Amino acid sequence: MEIKKGLEDVYVKETEITYIDGELGRLYYRGYSIYDLAEFSNFEETSYLILYGKLPNIYEYENFVKSLRESRGISDRVKEFLKSVKKNADPMDVLRTAVSIMGLEENTHTYNVSEQSIINLISKFPTIISYYIRLRRDLEPVEPDTSLSHAANFLYMVNGTKPSEEEYKAMDVAMILHIDHEMNASTFASLVVASTLSDIYSSIIAGISALKGPLHGGANYEALKMFKEIGYIENVEKYILNRLANKQRIMGFGHRVYKTYDPRARILKAYAKLLAEKKGGEIKRLYEIAEKVEEIGIKHLGPKGIYPNVDFYSSIVFYALGFEPEFFPTVFASARVTGWIAHILEYVKDNKIIRPKAYYKGEIGRKYIPIDSR
Amino acid sequence: MEIKKGLEDVYVKETEITYIDGELGRLYYRGYSIYDLAEFSNFEETSYLILYGKLPNIYEYENFVKSLRESRGISDRVKEFLKSVKKNADPMDVLRTAVSIMGLEENTHTYNVSEQSIINLISKFPTIISYYIRLRRDLEPVEPDTSLSHAANFLYMVNGTKPSEEEYKAMDVAMILHIDHEMNASTFASLVVASTLSDIYSSIIAGISALKGPLHGGANYEALKMFKEIGYIENVEKYILNRLANKQRIMGFGHRVYKTYDPRARILKAYAKLLAEKKGGEIKRLYEIAEKVEEIGIKHLGPKGIYPNVDFYSSIVFYALGFEPEFFPTVFASARVTGWIAHILEYVKDNKIIRPKAYYKGEIGRKYIPIDSR
Ligand SMILES: CC(C)(COP(=O)(O)OP(=O)(O)OC[C@H]1O[C@@H](n2cnc3c(N)ncnc32)[C@H](O)[C@@H]1OP(=O)(O)O)[C@@H](O)C(=O)NCCC(=O)NCCS
Ligand SMILES: CC(C)(COP(=O)(O)OP(=O)(O)OC[C@H]1O[C@@H](n2cnc3c(N)ncnc32)[C@H](O)[C@@H]1OP(=O)(O)O)[C@@H](O)C(=O)NCCC(=O)NCCS
Repeated sequence: MEIKKGLEDVYVKETEITYIDGELGRLYYRGYSIYDLAEFSNFEETSYLILYGKLPNIYEYENFVKSLRESRGISDRVKEFLKSVKKNADPMDVLRTAVSIMGLEENTHTYNVSEQSIINLISKFPTIISYYIRLRRDLEPVEPDTSLSHAANFLYMVNGTKPSEEEYKAMDVAMILHIDHEMNASTFASLVVASTLSDIYSSIIAGISALKGPLHGGANYEALKMFKEIGYIENVEKYILNRLANKQRIMGFGHRVYKTYDPRARILKAYAKLLAEKKGGEIKRLYEIAEKVEEIGIKHLGPKGIYPNVDFYSSIVFYALGFEPEFFPTVFASARVTGWIAHILEYVKDNKIIRPKAYYKGEIGRKYIPIDSR
Repeated sequence: MEIKKGLEDVYVKETEITYIDGELGRLYYRGYSIYDLAEFSNFEETSYLILYGKLPNIYEYENFVKSLRESRGISDRVKEFLKSVKKNADPMDVLRTAVSIMGLEENTHTYNVSEQSIINLISKFPTIISYYIRLRRDLEPVEPDTSLSHAANFLYMVNGTKPSEEEYKAMDVAMILHIDHEMNASTFASLVVASTLSDIYSSIIAGISALKGPLHGGANYEALKMFKEIGYIENVEKYILNRLANKQRIMGFGHRVYKTYDPRARILKAYAKLLAEKKGGEIKRLYEIAEKVEEIGIKHLGPKGIYPNVDFYSSIVFYALGFEPEFFPTVFASARVTGWIAHILEYVKDNKIIRPKAYYKGEIGRKYIPIDSR
């Protein structure tokens, strides 16, 4: 009897969505290299690809983009909720609750996914997140601009000004890179829920709940906190060695599947560098610290197959684009929601409830003794 | 390469909490037979047992009971939320959102479980549920009564009158029987979330989300709907045969682990019968229909190892005790929350992120073609 702790190397389903080659450090969405998609595609097109299995033709593309743009608005009820939240709340708790309210409004009792629910989920995450960001900054929330693409509009709603071409491209690429990653913990949490034939909002909420964890989507926030804590490039080596000596993890390093450099980190590093050079100041300093952490980290952890992952440089990119660190996991969520949905649709087509076992190693047949004789 | 669809027979952890003997139809909590606990224990004591591994002595018991009683109240914010919900919402969506608000209020960024969070979760579920039940009925919500035990107070808050001794005992036993069930889908969903070191509220929300599904905790609601749809005992055989011929499932039948009669169903059947006799009328009629469904169901499905499960007769018990059918899964949740917490605590003590794999069977190396050439 074998315990599959962490379900390492257990295959829970077949998929035609995403392939990770963890040895060579390659990632494919629906068979397309992530390098090609990051260079030539955009968030909307890649979302379509992930959901429907093929790149859209011009007609399908325009339809999809149009539905997304027209569905960005959030309900008064969700706005009221966001206004009522205290300013130091965890943004993932806020997102989770807002999506729970969306589910309440749609009121679906069992698994029954409409095209519009899919569009709603993908299009509204950025609006929810930016709305709360603006309120936290004591600024008026910015309504979505339907003339802008998904990533450009997200930055516009956060910062109140339209992004530069470079900022847009960095955000768009970062979102593409976060869309899906095979059977990661949050996607798997969504599937466990969907496999009971619960409604899609409940499944997505489980995804958000899992993504929040520092071992998963919370790692980008932890990485930036670490860069800030280090403070100066001269401190890096001592800090990292100290951390490793104390058996603490380097956040943004390591992966269950990649035993080499994560291709997403490679692409994000280039954008982080570009933005650091453009923006200078704190961003440049943090980027340089990150580069040094990478070097020292790889020196000590590389031989164990532990390298920078997606969260390592995304933290610098998100920060440079105007997000407060606590919000990084929500940005991750706003892209990954597409992957959650795609895997749910794929799994439930040939559903079986996900119900493993636990191996009992305690006593059996204990005798109940009345409380006054214990 | 083997696909473990539904993770059937995969062991994801060791446990000292619950043991199911699916062949003999036996269930043990911490080594104590469920028959003994149903007969001699109560919800509070059994919760203590599940959480801490031993039956409490009188001092521990009184302390635990006291904390639970004193923590029943819900915040104004949660009350405001419940008042604002439309009357036809799915009660599981309401519970999920209310608990999400509780998480927001506690504001815990990562895994860090206090004794008080555990007490809060267990003690407040009934208050949330009853509050919304009363509002749906256009009645004033009933504040918790600290002089009453957990199950008695739950019924009191729902019905506005103190339960009879029999009603109390039926509710208490039903709650005991729902506390834990090893690695069921909702407990497993909670663990996937907790394994990322996300906060406890997020994990519990994933549990609620999974329990909602009709293949899991939603089955009690489906079972009662079915009994009502059948309407008369004379219709049972035709209805069931028709359903089976159409490859539809008999709700409240079948289980991944039990291949024989579920001991929880056996105990609940006795209470359902008792209440049916006491209450007469619709309850008695539905109970008789259920008995007949059992007979016909076992005749056709028994040879395949498909028998009544916990949700089959719990539906009659919950209905007899005053719950509207849509609320049954929330009652299930209000007991299972103890099991979710116990398994989370047990898993995270020796944590490993739960991250299985999906087996890719699509193409690789597709060439990106610009949109106007597609
Ligand atoms: C991602 C992660 C959870 C994968 O975990 P996993 O596949 O279960 O691997 P384990 O946690 O069992 O780690 C295996 C070994 O590598 C070490 N390790 C893994 N990641 C490490 C890190 N980031 N820093 C230091 N050591 C690390 C572990 O301590 C363990 O060492 P040991 O065998 O001496 O005990 C893990 O690498 C991690 O915690 N990384 C940091 C958080 C992070 O960046 N998460 C985002 C992932 S996209
Ligand atoms: C509980 C349940 C999900 C377990 O599922 P599982 O272990 O994955 O088993 P499967 O769904 O693969 O079912 C195995 C076979 O039994 C049949 N079966 C299972 N439960 C059935 C039911 N309640 N009524 C009729 N047929 C049933 C399936 O149709 C399948 O038949 P097949 O092999 O001819 O296709 C399943 O029994 C079910 O859906 N029951 C009804 C819902 C319910 O009461 N859930 C509460 C459980 S506490």
